[in-house]
Amino acid sequence: MTKAKISLVLRLLAVGSTAAAIAIMVTSHETAKVLNLSFDAKYSYTSAFVYFVIAEGIAGGYSLVSLLLSCKPVFWRLVMMMDVVIAMLLSSSISAAVAIGEVGKKGNSHAGWLPICGQVPKFCDQLTGALIAGFVAAAIYLVLLLCSLRSLFALKP
Amino acid sequence: MTKAKISLVLRLLAVGSTAAAIAIMVTSHETAKVLNLSFDAKYSYTSAFVYFVIAEGIAGGYSLVSLLLSCKPVFWRLVMMMDVVIAMLLSSSISAAVAIGEVGKKGNSHAGWLPICGQVPKFCDQLTGALIAGFVAAAIYLVLLLCSLRSLFALKP
Repeated sequence: MTKAKISLVLRLLAVGSTAAAIAIMVTSHETAKVLNLSFDAKYSYTSAFVYFVIAEGIAGGYSLVSLLLSCKPVFWRLVMMMDVVIAMLLSSSISAAVAIGEVGKKGNSHAGWLPICGQVPKFCDQLTGALIAGFVAAAIYLVLLLCSLRSLFALKP
Repeated sequence: MTKAKISLVLRLLAVGSTAAAIAIMVTSHETAKVLNLSFDAKYSYTSAFVYFVIAEGIAGGYSLVSLLLSCKPVFWRLVMMMDVVIAMLLSSSISAAVAIGEVGKKGNSHAGWLPICGQVPKFCDQLTGALIAGFVAAAIYLVLLLCSLRSLFALKP
């Protein structure tokens, strides 16, 4: 398989995994009853999860556009620079969501934040799925960047 | 100023900002009394802040090593690939810390997590300082990468 084909496959996989991350995250919703009080869990209640969805959306949209752009050699410089930005955006969005997810799972006794995953296990499972899909997208961009760098290095005398 | 000198200056600045981020974060500590109960705030109580310190430590250490390595042309490929990894590590560590910091400042009423910055304002101010220093380090790595790519692009016929 040529380098261009590997890059196309990786970009297609990135489109798929970001789309999966968004779909799993936005459909996550669960309502629980705690001490007769209704307790609602939704991704949009937490800014880190909203940021995650927006970042995955930008990365997914860019991956689609880059599929077209990377076929035209004129744009390869722009694509590579944008790849760096998107890789950083993806790693940042997952970390923010994982940090909040960890508090949701284990709580933070020092700050008095109680874990909520015991009450809304389905919601937490869906979040974990979204985070795994997001992680796959970030890993794909890391591989894409390292591959592009390798091909660039080969050009240097 | 030559490209090599710009890269050296940027790496020195990265060493400085990661060191500042670590120093400000690890010295952040405040005790408050809430309803006669002693309330202790420390960075090590939150995994996201511990991850932040470790990631900034790795990035700072690497920046120091890369100062030496980037003087020797044999290592430039390795340095550039490592720069990509460190840039992603830095953006990830800041986002995790910002996500938790945001809950500390504003709380999350849906999850029942109360804000704590009202009780420990000095601790929160120091955290903000550490996050700004970490953000500067990540921005430096983004600039470093884009500059290195530009010089690489210039080589292509």
